[in-house]
Amino acid sequence: MLTPTTSNSQQQALLVALAGVLGAHGLLTDANDCARFTTGARYGQGSTLAVLRPDTHEQIVDCVRLCAEAGQALVLQGANTGLVAASTPDATGRFVVLSLERLKKHIEIDPINRSVTVDAGVTLQELNDALEPQGLFFPIDLGANPSIGGMIAANTGGARLIKYGDVRQNLLGLRAVLMQPAGEVLDLQSALRKNNTGPDLKQLFIGSSGAYGIITRAVLQVHRIPKQTATALVVPRDQAAVLELLSILERDCSEFLTAFEGVSGAALQAVLKHIPSISNPFAPEPLPNYCVLLELASTADPQVTGIDLESVLMRCLENLFGDVVENAVVGRGKDLWRIRHAISEALRHEGKMIAFDISMPRSSFVAFRDEGLALMAEKYPWIKVMDFGHWADGGCHFNMVWPQGEGIPQFDNQVVQAIRTEIYDLVVHRYHGSFSAEHGVGPYNLDFYQRYTSTAAQVLAGKMQSMLDPQRLLGLTWFGPVQ
Amino acid sequence: MLTPTTSNSQQQALLVALAGVLGAHGLLTDANDCARFTTGARYGQGSTLAVLRPDTHEQIVDCVRLCAEAGQALVLQGANTGLVAASTPDATGRFVVLSLERLKKHIEIDPINRSVTVDAGVTLQELNDALEPQGLFFPIDLGANPSIGGMIAANTGGARLIKYGDVRQNLLGLRAVLMQPAGEVLDLQSALRKNNTGPDLKQLFIGSSGAYGIITRAVLQVHRIPKQTATALVVPRDQAAVLELLSILERDCSEFLTAFEGVSGAALQAVLKHIPSISNPFAPEPLPNYCVLLELASTADPQVTGIDLESVLMRCLENLFGDVVENAVVGRGKDLWRIRHAISEALRHEGKMIAFDISMPRSSFVAFRDEGLALMAEKYPWIKVMDFGHWADGGCHFNMVWPQGEGIPQFDNQVVQAIRTEIYDLVVHRYHGSFSAEHGVGPYNLDFYQRYTSTAAQVLAGKMQSMLDPQRLLGLTWFGPVQ
Repeated sequence: MLTPTTSNSQQQALLVALAGVLGAHGLLTDANDCARFTTGARYGQGSTLAVLRPDTHEQIVDCVRLCAEAGQALVLQGANTGLVAASTPDATGRFVVLSLERLKKHIEIDPINRSVTVDAGVTLQELNDALEPQGLFFPIDLGANPSIGGMIAANTGGARLIKYGDVRQNLLGLRAVLMQPAGEVLDLQSALRKNNTGPDLKQLFIGSSGAYGIITRAVLQVHRIPKQTATALVVPRDQAAVLELLSILERDCSEFLTAFEGVSGAALQAVLKHIPSISNPFAPEPLPNYCVLLELASTADPQVTGIDLESVLMRCLENLFGDVVENAVVGRGKDLWRIRHAISEALRHEGKMIAFDISMPRSSFVAFRDEGLALMAEKYPWIKVMDFGHWADGGCHFNMVWPQGEGIPQFDNQVVQAIRTEIYDLVVHRYHGSFSAEHGVGPYNLDFYQRYTSTAAQVLAGKMQSMLDPQRLLGLTWFGPVQ
Repeated sequence: MLTPTTSNSQQQALLVALAGVLGAHGLLTDANDCARFTTGARYGQGSTLAVLRPDTHEQIVDCVRLCAEAGQALVLQGANTGLVAASTPDATGRFVVLSLERLKKHIEIDPINRSVTVDAGVTLQELNDALEPQGLFFPIDLGANPSIGGMIAANTGGARLIKYGDVRQNLLGLRAVLMQPAGEVLDLQSALRKNNTGPDLKQLFIGSSGAYGIITRAVLQVHRIPKQTATALVVPRDQAAVLELLSILERDCSEFLTAFEGVSGAALQAVLKHIPSISNPFAPEPLPNYCVLLELASTADPQVTGIDLESVLMRCLENLFGDVVENAVVGRGKDLWRIRHAISEALRHEGKMIAFDISMPRSSFVAFRDEGLALMAEKYPWIKVMDFGHWADGGCHFNMVWPQGEGIPQFDNQVVQAIRTEIYDLVVHRYHGSFSAEHGVGPYNLDFYQRYTSTAAQVLAGKMQSMLDPQRLLGLTWFGPVQ
């Protein structure tokens, strides 16, 4: 599969045909023009013969037909914000990039149904800008600004999943273009919350890294923008108290809990050290060993409900003081979230980042963290673990930094791979967790997919992929067993 | 496919082998013993050679291997509460029933993770009884008491979907036995809220009427039992005001809204006429033309939040009086829900029921209902439409009754089929709705699946079915194009 299947003259003929479909702005072949499409957001630098930039669904259908006929492989790209190298071509040059960033004409809001029909190339921010005047938003809360198609292909989760669910839980319908029969359109654009009319085929395309078909349009359930929020940065008594705090919040504040983000003391220290505009929120107290950023939100009208969420949060925390909670800062939501959002940048100042996107049952968190930290301290004492995570949904960025300096081993990719394997083995085998919580699977972590996915599951995923893309032209990720 | 593929002597040999696997209690062949397994909850009376009643997953694996080897077709049955005839055999005798009702040993609750691992034969009531001491419940609210496996196979929704979602949205993992390779186990029993490690294979088995594989275990997200509810039966100004009321409630009471059930005046009249213990809740006012049963619920601790939901509801409705709302009864939640739950029984007293389980975008409800009522009044004036529906999630039971009496045409199945086709055509073609909202697809409505599902979707669904069950031994429902 790694050698181009088309000859040079065939490729030239294909490019001429594609130019006919896409017009002058729709086809890039100059290497400078193509550069940003071949560079991954975190991993990967590839090369491509051309970038196809259709701005209509019909052009995509035509491109797919032409490419399938020519045996030309495609890699799909939305806003190119993915973190597993699934949206950029490899270095072989055998792929052309099919970019959907210009497919963004259509945004149709149905406020009574609380739904929106949207082209796949529309970005999350563009969608939310269009929804805002109606008091609505698409509640998948991410650090990046991906396209809607990319969000579906990765089934993104984010920081507020416990309240709103992931993309899958908010996707009512979609339209996809298939590779087999090439260019066939599967139109499943319904805007229904209840619809059980046979197998739900749209599920095939969610979280499949673009390997099963090309999403060109989505119908999404949207939500009302909250009318008030209350935020606190809380220091739990110890690690076990983090889980106690989560259970108590779900019991006492239940429907209001929108975020429960654990932040390690090491991550917090890095933020204060490298981001000068952020100061210790607990001053004059020293920084804690661990803290939790928690948020309550209410979408209801406070004049009708009489709810003042900040008071609710204060009351809830007061009951816990001295027992579950040692310290807390309530209010200043923007400032507190700034701390949380500054972690990734701060970590980069500390050295080379080794990022993790793992998850586990919430009940495993304390034991996993203890064991993970002990493992690292024993075997890789020069590595700094600076973890943070979405405890309410089980997601954990068990991130680490490899610093530079005297007495510290040189950065070594093989050691990094060994660390990743040990941490993933721990989370998957011992704690029944996942090696990829919200970033999906692509070339960057495909070897781990093969390591942790049962043979039965790989066989079935591969059979489906062969059925949907028998020439194996779509994307870089093969979900079947290694051949 | 309609003739038995096994000869009598082969069948006898198979029964002996199955008896070896299942033991004395696990295999029924006596026609009296089998009767309750061959009679559908609403439709269908079939016959079967035997009922297989495994009580372990391993027995199911062995049964599947033996049946696949013998070419023996199976129909899966949970608690046999389905309404589309998918869980009972047809009259040909070519099926044996694989009943999962004895597969119910395992219920393992993780209260910190708010999840439960449960055998497929456990019923909804049994599950909720086990969860109740932990303050937890599985929130799919149904009139029946199905098995968990059946609920997944039908992706049931129910009356509180707007708050809790459907089964799909609460299913974290499952284990299935495949027909190809026969008896292969696909173990996807993770308890994770964030897990994107390739195509989500468990989705194949949700809402597929048991045609793609045999679910033997599920991992479910569960929820905290609400601490308070507030209920009202509300008379909106007119039909348009129903949608206004829904929008206002979502704006003002948002996260508390758990049910919004429309009830037609005709259905209400039937309840009062035939259920003597229920009296007019609006007395001394006459019955309204239409009313809405709405429910708010809060899981949070009222001592912490200070919320009194009944006051919230009163305040909200007071603002609407004279404009959107004409009358309302607040409180007496049990009595008000009794009215709603009595509708089906009351309708049976009125004549022969023609049941509908349709859905549409919420924004289409008023126009659909107007047009549907006008169509019936014009073409079938003797039929009484007595509809009710879950307006918040778009579900609508546009049920009707064919009464007996002087001047009324004799009940005629062909006319019923014509009515069903006209109503489905209206909802699907004109209002972009669904002919099966929450009951799924089975022999009862397979012809409508074929009528309303695009060829591309049927081809893909059929390809998957052929891949998963090449001998076509599993169940009565073929999702591919008519052959």
